[in-house]
Amino acid sequence: MSEQVQDYDPAHGAAHTYDPKTFYDGLVRHGLIVPVRVQGAFGRGAVFEDVLEHLNALVTRISKDDRAEVFTFPPVIDRTIIERTDYLDSFPQLAGTVFSFLGKERQAKELSERVHAGQPWGDLQGMTDVCLNPAACYPLYPVMAGTLPAAGRLVTMTNWVYRHEPSPEPTRMQSFRVREFVRAGSPDEVVAWRDMWLQRGVEMLQGLGLPANADVAADPFFGRAGKMLADGQKAQKLKFEVLVPVISRESPTAVCSFNYHQDKFGSAFGIRTADEQVAHTACLGFGLERLTMALFRHHGFLPEEWPKAVRDRLWP
Amino acid sequence: MSEQVQDYDPAHGAAHTYDPKTFYDGLVRHGLIVPVRVQGAFGRGAVFEDVLEHLNALVTRISKDDRAEVFTFPPVIDRTIIERTDYLDSFPQLAGTVFSFLGKERQAKELSERVHAGQPWGDLQGMTDVCLNPAACYPLYPVMAGTLPAAGRLVTMTNWVYRHEPSPEPTRMQSFRVREFVRAGSPDEVVAWRDMWLQRGVEMLQGLGLPANADVAADPFFGRAGKMLADGQKAQKLKFEVLVPVISRESPTAVCSFNYHQDKFGSAFGIRTADEQVAHTACLGFGLERLTMALFRHHGFLPEEWPKAVRDRLWP
Repeated sequence: MSEQVQDYDPAHGAAHTYDPKTFYDGLVRHGLIVPVRVQGAFGRGAVFEDVLEHLNALVTRISKDDRAEVFTFPPVIDRTIIERTDYLDSFPQLAGTVFSFLGKERQAKELSERVHAGQPWGDLQGMTDVCLNPAACYPLYPVMAGTLPAAGRLVTMTNWVYRHEPSPEPTRMQSFRVREFVRAGSPDEVVAWRDMWLQRGVEMLQGLGLPANADVAADPFFGRAGKMLADGQKAQKLKFEVLVPVISRESPTAVCSFNYHQDKFGSAFGIRTADEQVAHTACLGFGLERLTMALFRHHGFLPEEWPKAVRDRLWP
Repeated sequence: MSEQVQDYDPAHGAAHTYDPKTFYDGLVRHGLIVPVRVQGAFGRGAVFEDVLEHLNALVTRISKDDRAEVFTFPPVIDRTIIERTDYLDSFPQLAGTVFSFLGKERQAKELSERVHAGQPWGDLQGMTDVCLNPAACYPLYPVMAGTLPAAGRLVTMTNWVYRHEPSPEPTRMQSFRVREFVRAGSPDEVVAWRDMWLQRGVEMLQGLGLPANADVAADPFFGRAGKMLADGQKAQKLKFEVLVPVISRESPTAVCSFNYHQDKFGSAFGIRTADEQVAHTACLGFGLERLTMALFRHHGFLPEEWPKAVRDRLWP
């Protein structure tokens, strides 16, 4: 949190310094986000939401000829999805599971007494059948079980996702929205689609005046074995990100993520191509809050003062 | 789930029978909702979402002269909010708390082994600082702490809320969206505002061709003491609902809820009026999924065949 590099980009008067705290304070001061007691769960103000919604609408416009199916899933999903996909092997530290009170009168009395006495009460909660959705695409894979149409399937969703990584850094949230696309089909179809979107994504962001670049990336796998998993993922070029400097020039922020899963989800959920092969899948997601913040960082905290070309693209 | 009353309303060909299962199956068959393994967490299809979004936009239009502040809060909130508001006394069975893995390498290995062996793993999770938002207005009260402007405050939000009540009945969801309004001010201001909206809400729904009626109501308080709390709430007329038959003619579904909290939240969070009294608050919420379902129930599963007056109001 100590990086204080001045940005010499001559544009606009607002967010000139690459420093997480200065940027967070600016977002708060302009009513764009609303602080709460816990980290990474702040409220969003009306102007923030307006930009976010129009970004999402822009993604819809540039992809409308693809004719994706549209779904929305709730923030909680079937817990067995994270059990069946090894999510708890790779990212146990990020998963959020939903617990609830499953007792009767006597235990309810104890729960009440503990809460009022300020004592721990977690042991009076039991695990439910749902967990928080860790990635926008997860609830879709069981829905695609079975044989795909001849051309495979293309689905888009805007879902809330959860990551247990509280942080004072504004781009690292516990809860945020991802506009996601998922392609299922043969390996060739899926890789070609991913490559097309990688270019389209970079162009979209550059068209919004953002210094966006794509790069090979790795997921934040847990523990000592995680380093090896990350190296393997990079060597196979299974994950790309589109990055924009938001709180640091040296470590730009991932605002889009492109993941080729090979046959991972196809095998786990029995998704088959029309010619009865295990389907391959890839997904890509726009981190809507991060993209919104990137715009405030590069064009200032007042959308009415953004460059006309950017405004015309967002509010056509 | 066995009620099978025929509805003699002569309109439209779709959802004629008041039976939860028939209605659920119709929603699925028309691609309006997407079944998942757990109850009350189904996906929503494109047409369902389109209706829901236009309902929400209609609420915005009919209230735009009120000039409410607009916020959005994530599905997870500061856990101490439900601790400070006695939520766990009144509705322990409905609350969802977020647990996460807080261990190191050794515990992660055990977690992985248990998950792969199909053994319980809940005891390897610890309580986090966040819980699921139990009612759209909850995250707002700490934000309003302090002294209100002279005219009080009026805020609107569309938030995802969680209730731990899995059910096969389509209108009883674990996770759903509420379009909420919150008024904070003096008792007179707050009650007058609530009364104004009660009429406006009924008129809005009747204008959409829904047989809506308002009634005094009570919350589903837990346990033996709950009956007394509910009776008190009814006697004081603190809660009203607007009801529309959706899965039963005899037990219509609450699609809007109006709650006068008196000084409950003002006291808990230190919200004061400009003349330094404890502020009173009231909220009202439109259950967006339930309202959407009410339209499908009364006008059929195909929005393009809905009465012109209803279509004109939703898609002006």
